[in-house]
Amino acid sequence: MPSRGPQAARSLEHRHVKSPSQPRDRGIPEATVARLPLYLRALHGMAERGIATVSSEDLAVAAGVNSAKLRKDLSHLGSYGTRGVGYDVEYLVYQISRELGLTQDWAVAIVGVGNLGRALANYGGFVSRGFRVAALVDADPEVVGDTIAGLNVEHIDDLEAVIKRRGVSIVVLATPAAAAQEVCDRVVAVGVTSILNFAPVVLSVPESVDVRKVDLSIELQILAFHEQRKAGGPLMAVDSQ
Amino acid sequence: MPSRGPQAARSLEHRHVKSPSQPRDRGIPEATVARLPLYLRALHGMAERGIATVSSEDLAVAAGVNSAKLRKDLSHLGSYGTRGVGYDVEYLVYQISRELGLTQDWAVAIVGVGNLGRALANYGGFVSRGFRVAALVDADPEVVGDTIAGLNVEHIDDLEAVIKRRGVSIVVLATPAAAAQEVCDRVVAVGVTSILNFAPVVLSVPESVDVRKVDLSIELQILAFHEQRKAGGPLMAVDSQ
Repeated sequence: MPSRGPQAARSLEHRHVKSPSQPRDRGIPEATVARLPLYLRALHGMAERGIATVSSEDLAVAAGVNSAKLRKDLSHLGSYGTRGVGYDVEYLVYQISRELGLTQDWAVAIVGVGNLGRALANYGGFVSRGFRVAALVDADPEVVGDTIAGLNVEHIDDLEAVIKRRGVSIVVLATPAAAAQEVCDRVVAVGVTSILNFAPVVLSVPESVDVRKVDLSIELQILAFHEQRKAGGPLMAVDSQ
Repeated sequence: MPSRGPQAARSLEHRHVKSPSQPRDRGIPEATVARLPLYLRALHGMAERGIATVSSEDLAVAAGVNSAKLRKDLSHLGSYGTRGVGYDVEYLVYQISRELGLTQDWAVAIVGVGNLGRALANYGGFVSRGFRVAALVDADPEVVGDTIAGLNVEHIDDLEAVIKRRGVSIVVLATPAAAAQEVCDRVVAVGVTSILNFAPVVLSVPESVDVRKVDLSIELQILAFHEQRKAGGPLMAVDSQ
């Protein structure tokens, strides 16, 4: 049997990170992992409004899931609430944050400092969730040396050194599509195994690397589906017969 | 029984758009709707590479779902493929695009033209999916009148007039958090029923309005979960006993 070679070990990026129903990591389903940030967002909002305890029903409405699913998800964390009282908001924030790994400090590098990279560098929602933007990197000599969000923009030639020096564990790719795979290969070669990809391209990575892709048009497409229905789209016509 | 009043009719934004398992729109489950853009993205990539037909297995791998789920999702569209041949890529692109309403031309207004609004205005992924950025609106006199991505930035005071004149049906909110609810109320009052919210705030809208929220940190949180596991996080310690 022939050796598979390095190419055979590479996968399309979504293959092992997006299968929503496959359990991994001691039986916590991937779909549950994907919902934990939604619960956390709702709980943070409640904590800010001084709410100390919350019923599974109220938390489910705030997070946009049904309450049976919420209770099942939280049971994976060993969190069952108290009958007639509900969940302690602060403790549940801690439990979910710990589960997601957000009680650690994650050093993030943003590669590509155009409008999107700048928006991400200034995005308040990262810091409050345990993500520290530790490095900004760009190829454009006009941009290198600028200070953005308190950080000096460094040159792409120094990418590997910057990642090591700053202890970067997650790389955010906000480069043009044409540059993304090369940057990806370089950060993988230097040991990074978590990549958030904003570039409009499917990246090839080894199996051991997790890539999440943000496609800014996907939520718009879901809105368009409902907008079409409201306006009486093709299937609505069938419905009304 | 007292009248419920307008406040009672308002809902947290996620309540009716995010319940992933509730069927709506002639039995197409919301979770299927959310996966259709992933299939479409994979199919566009195949079409660009000149692939004419694709098996459900290959399309499932490219989209990151299991093939049984993919076949079930596509059956909701009346698309079953041909045994031994698979799906016709071009026709399936058409079917999914039509289902999502992307064969129409959707005029989108972006309100808030900071770094994020500019990044969105220049985002190539919108146009190729049927979304046309038809208006840019900002409150900053320094920005109003600028040309970005070929569009003149208009003043927030003219928001209602701009929406009507350009036939805007979807509004993208990229304002600071403090301004988002007021802008939201104004666009809802003028008849907009689809809002994509990038502002870090939960919007109150009437039941008839769909709001999708993009939290740029959510994908990072999912990466952190796996990164923690690779590094031997708290539950890995339990695993190894």
